Amino acid sequence: MTDMQTATITDDEKARILQERLKMGFNMVPFTQAMGLTIKEMSADKITAEFAMQPQLIGNVFKQVLHGGVIATALDTVGGAMAMSGAYVALKGTPKEDRATRINRLATIDMRIDYLKAGRGTLFTATASLLRVGKQICVTRMELHNEKHELIAAGTATYMY
Amino acid sequence: MTDMQTATITDDEKARILQERLKMGFNMVPFTQAMGLTIKEMSADKITAEFAMQPQLIGNVFKQVLHGGVIATALDTVGGAMAMSGAYVALKGTPKEDRATRINRLATIDMRIDYLKAGRGTLFTATASLLRVGKQICVTRMELHNEKHELIAAGTATYMY
Amino acid sequence: MTDMQTATITDDEKARILQERLKMGFNMVPFTQAMGLTIKEMSADKITAEFAMQPQLIGNVFKQVLHGGVIATALDTVGGAMAMSGAYVALKGTPKEDRATRINRLATIDMRIDYLKAGRGTLFTATASLLRVGKQICVTRMELHNEKHELIAAGTATYMY
Amino acid sequence: MTDMQTATITDDEKARILQERLKMGFNMVPFTQAMGLTIKEMSADKITAEFAMQPQLIGNVFKQVLHGGVIATALDTVGGAMAMSGAYVALKGTPKEDRATRINRLATIDMRIDYLKAGRGTLFTATASLLRVGKQICVTRMELHNEKHELIAAGTATYMY
Repeated sequence: MTDMQTATITDDEKARILQERLKMGFNMVPFTQAMGLTIKEMSADKITAEFAMQPQLIGNVFKQVLHGGVIATALDTVGGAMAMSGAYVALKGTPKEDRATRINRLATIDMRIDYLKAGRGTLFTATASLLRVGKQICVTRMELHNEKHELIAAGTATYMY
Repeated sequence: MTDMQTATITDDEKARILQERLKMGFNMVPFTQAMGLTIKEMSADKITAEFAMQPQLIGNVFKQVLHGGVIATALDTVGGAMAMSGAYVALKGTPKEDRATRINRLATIDMRIDYLKAGRGTLFTATASLLRVGKQICVTRMELHNEKHELIAAGTATYMY
Repeated sequence: MTDMQTATITDDEKARILQERLKMGFNMVPFTQAMGLTIKEMSADKITAEFAMQPQLIGNVFKQVLHGGVIATALDTVGGAMAMSGAYVALKGTPKEDRATRINRLATIDMRIDYLKAGRGTLFTATASLLRVGKQICVTRMELHNEKHELIAAGTATYMY
Repeated sequence: MTDMQTATITDDEKARILQERLKMGFNMVPFTQAMGLTIKEMSADKITAEFAMQPQLIGNVFKQVLHGGVIATALDTVGGAMAMSGAYVALKGTPKEDRATRINRLATIDMRIDYLKAGRGTLFTATASLLRVGKQICVTRMELHNEKHELIAAGTATYMY
């Protein structure tokens, strides 16, 4: 019975299940949870997360703008989720346990952030897409917009697994 | 009287007063205060800040390591403080009000972070030094070590004023 | 006569003249000329340059791929040309001599390059667009494709003027 | 006889032989050879290369300074040589053929360069050291100085193997 049921789960469905698990996992990370950051959408080629402006996210009380570290956190989160989703597909064919071990050890190697506009707004949306995905590393591009669709920051990060 | 007193304040003393003010200012930033990050030492060529491990700074509950965003926040904070201190010296000769306006508008343009080792530890120290300082921009180099003096992350950032 | 003629030159025409001069200027730079890199198109928001594969541009004789330095050169060239064109528009209103002086002193502050695919091909196209443009600095995004439209490398650079 | 001779070659000697081969290999790369760049010293933790100013390396004829692409080429070369040397040590214990295959496929993933001072001078020295070295990736830090020991540029690069 179990085998037959397993057999009926397609690759797409498996990827969808993984994405839901990753979404739940990322939404439970202590630091981003404290910040109110939530992954909203997750597919094989795009991730979207949101967070609202809050007093404790302020970096400059006179200008009432987001701290650069908040922006870095949001970009690294969507980049990491995108990398995990990409790695899952890229590691197809790898023995199941091995694949899980490698996705679990995924880590950011480096990240560049360009702060393009002061972080003013009430609701911020972070998105990530894949620039490169291979058997060992993955490169993602990330953006942060406010509710007026202004581009606040852009980033590029490299992940290893 | 006032003039005579002013005359007795040397450039070094003025820089020292500015550094104390910057230290106080940085230690009151909502986001870094919530994180427990405190600037300890501030001189014309080096900044040191500290923070202790806390449950809400965790990025991966299984590995019990710092979130990459926490590391980015610490590095951007010491880099920014170093840049302000450097800009103050570089803008010597600029009319007083102008100098203050420009230091207040100092902003991160871009930052690169290299995550070199998982963020394990109980007490973390972030340091910054100047790579370049001019009339418009400043480049700083930053490092994060744990209490065992292991290098967790290194960064480079460009600031404008 | 001269004054009247000048009066009839629109801002768009002035920008077009500058772009032609920049194109000529960039195409005469010794290092890029030796490499066969030529700016083909230049507008207010996009720059395109081309170069053909040549034996002396090889970085790995066994793999017959471009040297990473060749790619960096192409990306910095289109990024710099884009920045000059962007700065010209951003500095509108600045006294004419001042504007020229500042555009002439434009310099790369920092650049990140992501090498996404081995540099194989016969004809390479480098493009640049503006991510941010202000009174002091400019951030550009660059890409290098081969004749099969494969993305070889992507970059981000910050320029000061 | 052969076995006994092999047995007398220590790990240090093997590393030294590899370094000599890498030095020869790097010094034969078409693009850097055309530029006059030569690796002078190569050890397990530092690489030094040199090149002289030449008319075709100029990026700005009025300022008579190096092209940013020349600087990128020099930094990527010493970074790559350092990464190969580091990877050789890190892959100790890996089957011999595997180790060779992986070192041969070493490639730059990403690089950041900070252009700190205009590239004026007659003789330039590029150096690289290791920031991180593992089984899959390596991060190096690079610097370029002129004959007056002025720091012209600094860089950080990530290599995969």
